[in-house]
Amino acid sequence: MKFKIQQKVFHNALIKSKRAISTSNTMPILSGVLLEADEEGNLVLTATDLEIGIVLKLGADVEKMGKIVIPGDELSSIIRELPEGTLEFSVDQSEYSAEIITESSEFMLRGFKPEEFPELPEVDITTSFSLEADKFKDMVDKVKFSCSKKASQPGLTGALLTVDTDSITMVATNTFRMAYYKREMELPDVEEKSRAIIPQNTLSEASRLIDDEDDEIYVEMGSNHCRFTCGDVIITSRLIEGKFPNYKQVMPDDYSAEVNVSKRGLRQAVKRVSTIARLDSNVIELDFDEDLLTIESSASEKGHGKEEVRINLTGQPQQSIKIDASYMLDGLKVLDEESVRLELIGKINPITMKNPGSDEYIYLIMPIRPDSSE
Amino acid sequence: MKFKIQQKVFHNALIKSKRAISTSNTMPILSGVLLEADEEGNLVLTATDLEIGIVLKLGADVEKMGKIVIPGDELSSIIRELPEGTLEFSVDQSEYSAEIITESSEFMLRGFKPEEFPELPEVDITTSFSLEADKFKDMVDKVKFSCSKKASQPGLTGALLTVDTDSITMVATNTFRMAYYKREMELPDVEEKSRAIIPQNTLSEASRLIDDEDDEIYVEMGSNHCRFTCGDVIITSRLIEGKFPNYKQVMPDDYSAEVNVSKRGLRQAVKRVSTIARLDSNVIELDFDEDLLTIESSASEKGHGKEEVRINLTGQPQQSIKIDASYMLDGLKVLDEESVRLELIGKINPITMKNPGSDEYIYLIMPIRPDSSE
Repeated sequence: MKFKIQQKVFHNALIKSKRAISTSNTMPILSGVLLEADEEGNLVLTATDLEIGIVLKLGADVEKMGKIVIPGDELSSIIRELPEGTLEFSVDQSEYSAEIITESSEFMLRGFKPEEFPELPEVDITTSFSLEADKFKDMVDKVKFSCSKKASQPGLTGALLTVDTDSITMVATNTFRMAYYKREMELPDVEEKSRAIIPQNTLSEASRLIDDEDDEIYVEMGSNHCRFTCGDVIITSRLIEGKFPNYKQVMPDDYSAEVNVSKRGLRQAVKRVSTIARLDSNVIELDFDEDLLTIESSASEKGHGKEEVRINLTGQPQQSIKIDASYMLDGLKVLDEESVRLELIGKINPITMKNPGSDEYIYLIMPIRPDSSE
Repeated sequence: MKFKIQQKVFHNALIKSKRAISTSNTMPILSGVLLEADEEGNLVLTATDLEIGIVLKLGADVEKMGKIVIPGDELSSIIRELPEGTLEFSVDQSEYSAEIITESSEFMLRGFKPEEFPELPEVDITTSFSLEADKFKDMVDKVKFSCSKKASQPGLTGALLTVDTDSITMVATNTFRMAYYKREMELPDVEEKSRAIIPQNTLSEASRLIDDEDDEIYVEMGSNHCRFTCGDVIITSRLIEGKFPNYKQVMPDDYSAEVNVSKRGLRQAVKRVSTIARLDSNVIELDFDEDLLTIESSASEKGHGKEEVRINLTGQPQQSIKIDASYMLDGLKVLDEESVRLELIGKINPITMKNPGSDEYIYLIMPIRPDSSE
């Protein structure tokens, strides 16, 4: 195996595949990147931690075909520090070692037998569709942070992706808050409604690997695995088998008051009050009047905070609700207009956050009731 | 106690004093900042972890004199998030609590009795002098990283500062490498030679607190403490009582070869080879020929790296030395000219690194001998 490649191209590809490199010690070969040079002048990089697999295809000047697995961390540290320009990569197939040569450098790294590198799972595709890459990224970024981090709730550690002939919906929840994003769009390739729970990490990687240059992302869903193809990158991931709760049950179909408020003003006020809230259980109390929202928090002995924010309320005033301050800040971070719309249904129902002119994205925070604690 | 102050002024002062705030739980009051408002319109902030004390004096609109200790972390989080403009700070002296009020915010924080805050030590000044702030900062930044991190070598966890009527010298070593900086200058206030070991942390803080606007730093040394005054900030610190080795013994008074090399080229080559070196004991071998330096490292089974760098050697060629790669990188980080001067005296003597035209700053790396290991 022997090829020449531009340092920059190789370095960028290694950065991308590094995400799937395993750091566990049980299977040392997973700390490596599988490099395959084929006769068509392609260099294919594969990395996997058995949960997610990342494959990248690059153009290279292949002199001799072959395969090798090289420790990913060491390889990318060397390639990162090499000067810009062409480097030569050649493998001693009997020793499983690779030489990296430039004008003034000579490196040798020992690797692993390529035959022992696990194959990525086949995806038994049942549904596939394409989507504008930036739209997909926007959905992922507005939803993924609401997944549960608790291993005891496996079904909630991912986001539920539902595709139908005319819409894509992504939902994530940890039962205390929920992010829901539904995009109406014609999906001519989709024949029937299909659902899958995609691990949070997979969504993060897919969103992160989308370049500004990428126009489309191609999504394939099977019964146990899914695959995302974007530019030269293919991500294969297992799906989560757990149960996803019936989220529609929690979605309010009405509200008793609608509030419009400056996102910046609200965010700063919540941030300030949460300096007090986090001294205790992170709870803030919101009191809505017709044109004023009062946000308060008490940390028993340590202190107290109170903020007032101008609002515009239509509907029933004088409502109050207690919520976790960090959940509200998370929502304010992803909402992307100058003002935010809040919908209220009393103190024992969730508070809803949306962009002013749209119901596509809905972010729900459950109230903290006197008898409940997280 | 009651004063008005600009949010920005208060915030910047809290950032500066935060460095001395203790996070230990044994004396909760040390997590606080002592605030004192006096009749001359000064607000004085004091923070200490008993090793180092930072005092800041600000102008404020003092309505009522008084003292209070307020938890530093909570106070600075609130002040940081407040909008720019004037804030009002008022203390309930019987409750030891403070109210922070702006147009739309009202915060209350409970504090500690100011009488219980430890007094900063008196410094029995034996020597004092002034120095240009940027010169002092340069000395500290070029020396401090060579201090030992090991509690078992107390005397080496600081830098030795020696002042004489005509020079200031700062030295730090962990016995494997040494940084030495001597500045010749008239110090009219100094009557006789004086030495003190200053904790690394104190030097870092002193260097960090120097603003671009600060012209001078005023240094006072006593038998157990020292004090640095720069702008509105006063740092008081204990001195280290341990022994400092006779560093002059290690300083070579001659060399057998002088090497001039591009700093950037050398640094990149060492960085690349150290990707291999750090897989093992971080050792690199330098082989000097008349116009070529070869840098090599072998990590037993894992790999090998070799780099060639063009050099300019005068004196005895064909010398080689083994050193710790990270020590060389540390030196290359602080040397500030385009080329570096190396001085060699064979493989069992230290290698010296300097700026080309000056002997003010000398950085020494001990060789790794076959029988020694760190």
